[in-house]
Amino acid sequence: MNIVRPDAARPMRRSPAKPVINREGDVIPPLAADAIRIVPLGGVEEIGKNMTAIEYGGDIIVVDIGFQFKDDDTPGVDFILPNTKYLEERRDKIRAVIITHGHLDHIGGIPYIMPRIGNPPMYTRLLTSVLILKRQEEFPGVPKIDMRVVEKNDTITVGKLKVRFFAVTHTIPDAMGVIIETPFGSIVHTGDLKVDHDGGIPTEREAEEYERAFPKDGSHKVLMLMADSTNVENPGFSLPEKTVHKNLEEIIKNMQGRLIIATFSSLLERLLKIVEAAEKYGKKVVVEGRSLKQNIEICKHLGLLKAKKETIISVDEIENYPPDRIVILSTGAQANDFSALVRMSQKTHAKIKITPRDTIILSSSVVPGNERPVQKLKDNLSRQGAKILHYRIADVHSSGHANRDETIWIHRAIRPKFFMPLHGYHYMLRTHCDAAKEANGLKEEDVVIPDNGNIVEIQAGGTKIVKLKEKAPSGLVLVDGFSVGDVQDVVIRDRQMLAQDGIFIIFGIVNASNGKLRKSPDIISRGFVYLRESQELLHEVRLLIRDSIEKSCKGQNPINMDFVKDNVTDAVSKYLLQKTAKRPMVIPVILTI
Amino acid sequence: MNIVRPDAARPMRRSPAKPVINREGDVIPPLAADAIRIVPLGGVEEIGKNMTAIEYGGDIIVVDIGFQFKDDDTPGVDFILPNTKYLEERRDKIRAVIITHGHLDHIGGIPYIMPRIGNPPMYTRLLTSVLILKRQEEFPGVPKIDMRVVEKNDTITVGKLKVRFFAVTHTIPDAMGVIIETPFGSIVHTGDLKVDHDGGIPTEREAEEYERAFPKDGSHKVLMLMADSTNVENPGFSLPEKTVHKNLEEIIKNMQGRLIIATFSSLLERLLKIVEAAEKYGKKVVVEGRSLKQNIEICKHLGLLKAKKETIISVDEIENYPPDRIVILSTGAQANDFSALVRMSQKTHAKIKITPRDTIILSSSVVPGNERPVQKLKDNLSRQGAKILHYRIADVHSSGHANRDETIWIHRAIRPKFFMPLHGYHYMLRTHCDAAKEANGLKEEDVVIPDNGNIVEIQAGGTKIVKLKEKAPSGLVLVDGFSVGDVQDVVIRDRQMLAQDGIFIIFGIVNASNGKLRKSPDIISRGFVYLRESQELLHEVRLLIRDSIEKSCKGQNPINMDFVKDNVTDAVSKYLLQKTAKRPMVIPVILTI
Repeated sequence: MNIVRPDAARPMRRSPAKPVINREGDVIPPLAADAIRIVPLGGVEEIGKNMTAIEYGGDIIVVDIGFQFKDDDTPGVDFILPNTKYLEERRDKIRAVIITHGHLDHIGGIPYIMPRIGNPPMYTRLLTSVLILKRQEEFPGVPKIDMRVVEKNDTITVGKLKVRFFAVTHTIPDAMGVIIETPFGSIVHTGDLKVDHDGGIPTEREAEEYERAFPKDGSHKVLMLMADSTNVENPGFSLPEKTVHKNLEEIIKNMQGRLIIATFSSLLERLLKIVEAAEKYGKKVVVEGRSLKQNIEICKHLGLLKAKKETIISVDEIENYPPDRIVILSTGAQANDFSALVRMSQKTHAKIKITPRDTIILSSSVVPGNERPVQKLKDNLSRQGAKILHYRIADVHSSGHANRDETIWIHRAIRPKFFMPLHGYHYMLRTHCDAAKEANGLKEEDVVIPDNGNIVEIQAGGTKIVKLKEKAPSGLVLVDGFSVGDVQDVVIRDRQMLAQDGIFIIFGIVNASNGKLRKSPDIISRGFVYLRESQELLHEVRLLIRDSIEKSCKGQNPINMDFVKDNVTDAVSKYLLQKTAKRPMVIPVILTI
Repeated sequence: MNIVRPDAARPMRRSPAKPVINREGDVIPPLAADAIRIVPLGGVEEIGKNMTAIEYGGDIIVVDIGFQFKDDDTPGVDFILPNTKYLEERRDKIRAVIITHGHLDHIGGIPYIMPRIGNPPMYTRLLTSVLILKRQEEFPGVPKIDMRVVEKNDTITVGKLKVRFFAVTHTIPDAMGVIIETPFGSIVHTGDLKVDHDGGIPTEREAEEYERAFPKDGSHKVLMLMADSTNVENPGFSLPEKTVHKNLEEIIKNMQGRLIIATFSSLLERLLKIVEAAEKYGKKVVVEGRSLKQNIEICKHLGLLKAKKETIISVDEIENYPPDRIVILSTGAQANDFSALVRMSQKTHAKIKITPRDTIILSSSVVPGNERPVQKLKDNLSRQGAKILHYRIADVHSSGHANRDETIWIHRAIRPKFFMPLHGYHYMLRTHCDAAKEANGLKEEDVVIPDNGNIVEIQAGGTKIVKLKEKAPSGLVLVDGFSVGDVQDVVIRDRQMLAQDGIFIIFGIVNASNGKLRKSPDIISRGFVYLRESQELLHEVRLLIRDSIEKSCKGQNPINMDFVKDNVTDAVSKYLLQKTAKRPMVIPVILTI
């Protein structure tokens, strides 16, 4: 017997295991000469793994290659990638990958996906290119990226298409939107963005940049807009990042004790401002956490960080200064395991001990799913007497995504004929379409709300937008250890079941000649009940197993082992449910000798 | 071989498995005659499982017996209970259980815990008593509760103590605070509460009730206050429930299509107002969802629901009315599996189909941990064209817990000498202490921030408050199927590990005479990698297993099976990690024949 996966009992769950969908794509019709095709491969049924393909006249341009962190539906998994099978089958048409900015939901999939789609040339702005190439160093096996740095005023030619860019405000420098010019008008992709403003009035810099890219003189016609939907549910204008900078500067200026500021290492603009403010008020900055150190180094290298060399000191120099001259910039605002602030909170940081004179700013919101770890972080810091400031009690964080009124302003600046929302869950995309209609009077037939893998076409020379009934493959692609694939739904379902009720394995050796068990069956169980205190249950189950196996074997020659296993699985599952109200995965292994 | 739990390989995790603490309590000194002891058994390191014991002169009074729903740290578990070992050992002293109100974090533990603490008499107000007794019907085996209904103006005598009550504003009728009178002043426990107000000015009704309970004429001395900390981090005053009622009434009045309102079935006051408003504007109410129906029935029974009989119709009568005369009151605002609104969203509700003319109000906030299910709910409703209103875009929900300024008003109305915060995580309790100091000028030595199981005493005739160094048992007590206990940490840890990397079981039969495997080893694995596509890996592992076992057995007589198992576990774990970057639980089962 060498069966690797004996038929497991798959008991009914009280709540159904969540399905991991692995749809194969349909047969997809060819693209007409007067049509433009847009395929969102990720980012339109979630926040994360943003990736969109745009195809015209035999040329494909890919915008962004993000990934998504695992969630409750995918236990044990490292990351979720966009499904790129559609592009893998058309890799000879891909002329360029354009990256809008350097956040992981836009660049995270690059090392996994670029080799699969033929490693086409990649275009992005300087900082983004440096962040991508730095990250590639962690993946030594992958081919070198053909990186071509562009700037916001550049125009490039990709296949038969001209591509321009425009600068957008986000939380990282060098964020940009993309303008792909076609004979029927241009296709615009905003990337992630918000609008810098004063009390709801966009700044001149914003107005000028949009006017440059989308002049109101009628010389530029936007056929279709794709834009960020992340925060469109929020009314009004978002808190401007500069207000956060001002508040942080004020706190840095007035702080009497030591100040620890924890924020996302990806919020590069904020990091730069914090260092500048500390320098301005004669304070020293200590940078703690690998990703922060790396990003600060990159900023220094690119000349983005203008602080004096001596402003940033090492953690060993803290004792040379009074506490009120120290600002510690730290990772860990999301309470990630082993991050610097978490180690401080757990008293395991080698160099920094929290004291009641410390003030800690959590300059971040709480990413959904992290509420519990962040609560524990605050509890542990508070137990050591530290004061805590966070976004719910002070304006020390703002999001990088436009609220509804900013979004409407963006729509009115770009004035598209058609619109397709990106970056969000379905309800957010729907809300964004409502905003698009309000902004420019678009009708329902002018907008499309896509799912991942939908094929959207602007047909008949730019006169109508349709969603094809055929879909590109859109099943989940999971990074799970070294395995990258789209066929692991059974593994994920097993993990979900194991996490609920555990596993219960029965080992029996049957004498082939008489159908009797050679000895009492062995049982291995994990995650089910505490077996040391369940001896009576085990005793009863062993009797039940023996009885079931021997009855099932009786009179059979040769023994139909599938029948025997089904019977014992069934009997044991029912018995355990009845006695414990738990439904472990029951697996019988029965050998004949 | 009948070993039930062979030594498992417990590989190091990339992130450490979260510990489930099972502290046994210390030896606890007797209570001095001039001291009052307060032991928070739950609710001070979490939101949930609220329970507090108050002891004086040989009498113990228990306030509330809640439970907590499971979280990410306790996969597969149904509920978490307060650890009541301290009370079980002192059950002969327990004179009363007092329940402040009928929410599950205050009553959920009753069926499990009352029998363990000797089923003492229970005191509470009418609605709460009905909710508790109704729930007891689901637990047919437990002893009948000796229920004694009190009203807010009652005074009862419990042992040698006098106990009074005061009405508090929460989101369910009959919520109350408790005043236990001792010779050194009274001990006050607020339960959950907020303050009804108009623009930050508490209403006269509130002011009068607090003046009645805590007259400012000096006749009443509050020795110690324990109060709700849930929302004390939020500045100002909370949105009054009556504003939510007004907004909902306005929406009901003006709605042109069908209206579906999903809310917590525990928000009884809001349910009652919705039915009243619907009746006022000539609409019919359909109640969907078991818990809602049950609570509406209870309200009818108690005369709390004053609507006419014909206002509430059955789901089958919907078609008899135009959509704009229908209000559906539904469970499912938190997207619980199988709740009415979730079934509507998934098109599996037998009677109600969502249409684009429907408007759905999610009259609730999102409980942390439910963000993803609630997002899916909104997405699915939105896919069917329904409009959605929720608390982020309209004032259709308010919490039942006081914000900081309300809390300060409560402190100033009660004016305690000592203070101990309840109901919250440590950081919330700390924040509440800061508010207490601001309210009444309390000093650090006048406040205590407890952990679950801490023993807090007011000693020396009410002159000082101290936290003993000895602790009552405070390990987690989990309800997991039929099992209720505090020794399941190993089971929980196993579930956590299984959910990450799965299990890998090796099954081999060794010939005792020569130490050789009788045949190629069998492997059973779940939740690790997709084995059907890992044949080469399996082939290599089998060779490795054979090699390891036979080498380990060589020259041994008898064979030291622990040594053999340790070696093969080690070799296989390392190999799998190296090849897959996953760390499944590796368990060898080796039989000798």
